[in-house]
Amino acid sequence: MLPRGRPRALGAAALLLLLLLLGFLLFDGRLRRAAALEGDPGAGPGDHNRSDCGPQPPPPPPPKCELLHVAIVCAGHNSSRDVITLVKSMLFYRKNPLHLHLVTDAVARNILETLFHTWMVPAVRVSFYHADELKPQVSWIPNKHYSGLYGLMKLVLPSALPAELARVIVLDTDVTFASDISALWALFAHFSDTQAIGLVENQSDWYLGNLWKNHRPWPALGRGFNTGVILLRLDRLRQAGWEQMWRLTARRELLTLPATSLADQDIFNAVIKEHPGLVRRLPCVWNVQLSDHTLAERCYSEASDLKVIHWNSPKKLRVKNKHVEFFRNFYLTFLGYDGNLLRRELFVCPSQPPPGAEQLQQALAQLDEEDPCFEFRQQQLTVHRVHVTFLPHEPPPPRPHDVTLVAQLSMDRLQMLEALCRHWPGPMSLALYLTDAEAQQFLHFVEASPVLAARQDVAYHVVYREGPLYPVNQLRNVALAQALTPYVFLSDIDFLPAYSLYNYLRASIEQLGLGSQRKAALVVPAFETLRYRFSFPHSKVELLALLDAGALYTFRYHEWPRGHAPTDYARWREAQAPYRVQWAADYEPYVVVPRDCPRYDPRFVGFGWNKVAHIVELDAQEYELLVLPEAFTIHLPHAPSLDISRFRSSPTYRDCLQALKDEFHQDLSRHHGAAALKYLPALQQPQSPARG
Amino acid sequence: MLPRGRPRALGAAALLLLLLLLGFLLFDGRLRRAAALEGDPGAGPGDHNRSDCGPQPPPPPPPKCELLHVAIVCAGHNSSRDVITLVKSMLFYRKNPLHLHLVTDAVARNILETLFHTWMVPAVRVSFYHADELKPQVSWIPNKHYSGLYGLMKLVLPSALPAELARVIVLDTDVTFASDISALWALFAHFSDTQAIGLVENQSDWYLGNLWKNHRPWPALGRGFNTGVILLRLDRLRQAGWEQMWRLTARRELLTLPATSLADQDIFNAVIKEHPGLVRRLPCVWNVQLSDHTLAERCYSEASDLKVIHWNSPKKLRVKNKHVEFFRNFYLTFLGYDGNLLRRELFVCPSQPPPGAEQLQQALAQLDEEDPCFEFRQQQLTVHRVHVTFLPHEPPPPRPHDVTLVAQLSMDRLQMLEALCRHWPGPMSLALYLTDAEAQQFLHFVEASPVLAARQDVAYHVVYREGPLYPVNQLRNVALAQALTPYVFLSDIDFLPAYSLYNYLRASIEQLGLGSQRKAALVVPAFETLRYRFSFPHSKVELLALLDAGALYTFRYHEWPRGHAPTDYARWREAQAPYRVQWAADYEPYVVVPRDCPRYDPRFVGFGWNKVAHIVELDAQEYELLVLPEAFTIHLPHAPSLDISRFRSSPTYRDCLQALKDEFHQDLSRHHGAAALKYLPALQQPQSPARG
Repeated sequence: MLPRGRPRALGAAALLLLLLLLGFLLFDGRLRRAAALEGDPGAGPGDHNRSDCGPQPPPPPPPKCELLHVAIVCAGHNSSRDVITLVKSMLFYRKNPLHLHLVTDAVARNILETLFHTWMVPAVRVSFYHADELKPQVSWIPNKHYSGLYGLMKLVLPSALPAELARVIVLDTDVTFASDISALWALFAHFSDTQAIGLVENQSDWYLGNLWKNHRPWPALGRGFNTGVILLRLDRLRQAGWEQMWRLTARRELLTLPATSLADQDIFNAVIKEHPGLVRRLPCVWNVQLSDHTLAERCYSEASDLKVIHWNSPKKLRVKNKHVEFFRNFYLTFLGYDGNLLRRELFVCPSQPPPGAEQLQQALAQLDEEDPCFEFRQQQLTVHRVHVTFLPHEPPPPRPHDVTLVAQLSMDRLQMLEALCRHWPGPMSLALYLTDAEAQQFLHFVEASPVLAARQDVAYHVVYREGPLYPVNQLRNVALAQALTPYVFLSDIDFLPAYSLYNYLRASIEQLGLGSQRKAALVVPAFETLRYRFSFPHSKVELLALLDAGALYTFRYHEWPRGHAPTDYARWREAQAPYRVQWAADYEPYVVVPRDCPRYDPRFVGFGWNKVAHIVELDAQEYELLVLPEAFTIHLPHAPSLDISRFRSSPTYRDCLQALKDEFHQDLSRHHGAAALKYLPALQQPQSPARG
Repeated sequence: MLPRGRPRALGAAALLLLLLLLGFLLFDGRLRRAAALEGDPGAGPGDHNRSDCGPQPPPPPPPKCELLHVAIVCAGHNSSRDVITLVKSMLFYRKNPLHLHLVTDAVARNILETLFHTWMVPAVRVSFYHADELKPQVSWIPNKHYSGLYGLMKLVLPSALPAELARVIVLDTDVTFASDISALWALFAHFSDTQAIGLVENQSDWYLGNLWKNHRPWPALGRGFNTGVILLRLDRLRQAGWEQMWRLTARRELLTLPATSLADQDIFNAVIKEHPGLVRRLPCVWNVQLSDHTLAERCYSEASDLKVIHWNSPKKLRVKNKHVEFFRNFYLTFLGYDGNLLRRELFVCPSQPPPGAEQLQQALAQLDEEDPCFEFRQQQLTVHRVHVTFLPHEPPPPRPHDVTLVAQLSMDRLQMLEALCRHWPGPMSLALYLTDAEAQQFLHFVEASPVLAARQDVAYHVVYREGPLYPVNQLRNVALAQALTPYVFLSDIDFLPAYSLYNYLRASIEQLGLGSQRKAALVVPAFETLRYRFSFPHSKVELLALLDAGALYTFRYHEWPRGHAPTDYARWREAQAPYRVQWAADYEPYVVVPRDCPRYDPRFVGFGWNKVAHIVELDAQEYELLVLPEAFTIHLPHAPSLDISRFRSSPTYRDCLQALKDEFHQDLSRHHGAAALKYLPALQQPQSPARG
């Protein structure tokens, strides 16, 4: 036992010593861990002794299943593609539920809304905000950055995002995650009570103002900060009067500076220079900046752990950099990554299923795996991710009789596109059935083709592949839904229309009063050549000569004349005016109809009966069938597609098709009553196995 | 100042207190962190209080750039594919240099040696060990597991691997990494001085022996351990007399048990039951076992951090499990992952470049990006990853006059394969130019085709896509190098040979004494149909009738008759015996030659001159050209391939081709001297732009 009194003092001293020692040990440990984490602890590259951002302990992970908020500004077709790649990288590594706040223009909204709706990723909520409504708040700022007005919009996020949202991670569209975003979110815990903006130092000498003669950058603390990745304490910014703060600073600087060069980043830096207490420095690995002449190597060469890569050179992936191959591979990983694989559940965090997902799961669960038509049923239920207007697209100016060519294809028909563009000078809406990687090949294909790259009126909608059967009618419906003209020409990708068809159709629609006065489907007679080198006829006269010479046939003349017999080719030879024909079993002409025509029946997947059913529906809805005397389209030969070869040989294929037809007729009877009886014999007829 | 004496004792007491406190604090921290890391700390699922494996601190990461050793036993075509997927997942997350120790049979060695040689991944060394030599050491053990003899070979690794190798991670081929392997390696640091085998507890009730009536498993500690992931201290095992140890145990158990059910795992468990001090329990996340009725959920439902997934059900990906979708997506990620992207440098760890990589880098660096033929030069230098015999393959029995059909294709020609199999009943060696994802589609295509699945004599060699130009001659050379018969028929994928051709060629080779007595190339006359539905002639008589009826033409009759004119079709009509023809400019017949014939010139990438140059080389090497009177092959029509459409329209394409031809002739002159002069006019002729 120790005596009382003195020992107490000694005990207190020992305790003090203990605490000091403990403190030192812990601090030392933190120091070493932080150094490993940050490469260049506390400060950005080349700046070792910044006092406001000393060594940090690795933050505790955010509470399990905490919802993380991410805001991104996105406008236009190309940025929308970028955002999807960014989101894929984020989803790949994430372990938390996410709420994405997307500030978009109308184009990006249309694309991303459709995409997320069809992607159905569990534990991801998406909210949209109208960029156009925010424009007036920043449009007064002269800005020379390539991102334009949208580059400034991060400034207004504290007021644009919901008032109850206190924290958000803000990302540029050109960043790629190489790690779990929750570790970035966790850095909020390091903020002092007054800090409100977490940023990584700028990894170039831009703000030092010594890059070239007379270079006058905006004011910044040292190298300044990069705003490609921001942690925002929205609550504190609002409280601190951010709205006034940045405007005051910007107005004052603009008295002497002509414009922002780096958009929002210039203004963020100027505000921070004035209010340095707002900023929290983040470890450089959270925004490795691959700008030209970047100093990022100082950051990552010591850190084996890259967290976020930022392609902030206008050259993007073509930027020169010793290790760009390494970074590019990260980016390419997610560019080609199958987004379907990201539909995985976060099973550790229970979450609200995305809209429709629960019914879908139930319907899938009710399928009988032993049913020989299981693959058909499953394919019918599949919700494909859809990326509408994958490439830049100008909607056609509104014209009352304009016609959009509607078709669908997969990778093996890309080579048809150039010829199609030469034959059809009008708008097109094409659905492409591709994998994520194929979508990139397609992009390169279009960029490499002067013919395709010149056309802004062709809308390409990517429907991502999933399942073994070609969802032909779902594809047609996507293309049809995205057509923007009052009329559509429902074609197939292996057909080349007459050079004059586009103009002729518009004239015919006007003359016939289609749509407004007359509910009709205009039939474009179909022919085929069996020769794969072939001189396309420039007129009906030339076509008839080729037909007589045996160089052309009426479509499927040898294998399936019933499909087009009702068009009455003999009458067409002589016809001078449109003539009406009657529906008959198996009729499947190519037709021009108003855009609001019935949709294709998505139950027909794979091959067979997909167009026939649509024509049945048109007839049941009392569309007149009018054959146009000068219209024609010609089918070019091609090898059978992979999908068709795969299923033609399957013995159960025909049985399943018959089952689909039976179900189709039941639905037809339900909608049209006794009138549907007319179609019954046609539906009970066996289908020729050789047809596609 | 403190007085001396007493205070010294008090100081010592305080220090003691301090140390105790420190110890407690650190221990507590470890406890909490370990709990977070392991879900079920220390023990496996359902077993909370195992004393020999208390809470563990997260191990320190291995020293930066430490070389990690991994051993895998692999035999046969299917396991080789599995290993590649496993390796891709490992490489994706790894940050350390790796040394793979692969114990393989001859098939797997041929596949993996070629693959790693052409993959050229920086900081990956691969060593091979002959499984066949190890067989006698385990073949005495009766074993009922589906992995067969190879399943037992992990037992002999301590003696089979190099004596200086002290530590190794041993993996089954059916595991997938979801994290950095260095964290697994770091667990070696937790081993006590006597522990030698790190294992995760078995996540099923198998070894409890209560799965069904009369189930008598091998002895094990409780639930036993799973050997899909093992940390082996080889040094300690050797010292402990492992070789004797496991043999003794196995022999003793086999006195009462008929055979091993789970291969090596039964024996490992029996040894561990006897020597529990050898085992170090690993956190369950390092081997999440998706067997049927797995208890793994108890492990991963608490751990948000999955590390390694083990597909240890014989059902593999088809295993039923609440979260199997999640796990499957991980696996599918790496199955389709573009392995080229894993060629990235570990720039933090300097490493010996893989063989050939340095020269390749230098050659690539010397290319001039402004050279209009830059893409050609780059493509020529590209080393494509090659996966030979991608699918199970039985080499043909050695027969002196046997012929292998050699061809190459990409995805858009898969539908030719069935017809080709019907026309050619003999061995084939086909090179397929595919992405990793396409290779999987190809696999499913073959599995779904009874015609293809039935053929074991067709070898499919996957050459992975890289670069914009089709490396046609590199592909031909891969297929040619893998042909195993003494003769080869050098064909193209769009041709269907006469039904009788295979037998006829073998008879002709024998009659003509090709190879041994005569250095000759047998010409198979080529025809074409422009119709894509076409009844294939069963004899020369039928073929001539179709030719006369205009249903068939001699090949490229309309566009490029020079390519086959020297075959002399008029003479062929009447010929009863093989006849000799002379080489002429642009001649490119399809020929049968001995397997050791000259290789194709890999400089010809894209389209044009690739076959012509090969025939020039044959002629320069004085091969006789002998046309066979009953042989024929017919080209079927097809849409132009994507690659060809992309480059035909390019204006620089023809210039670059001419440059390649000039360089080809320079090399020809170098090898054949004045004899090469003969070919000069042919090389200076412009190439028809329409040819493929």
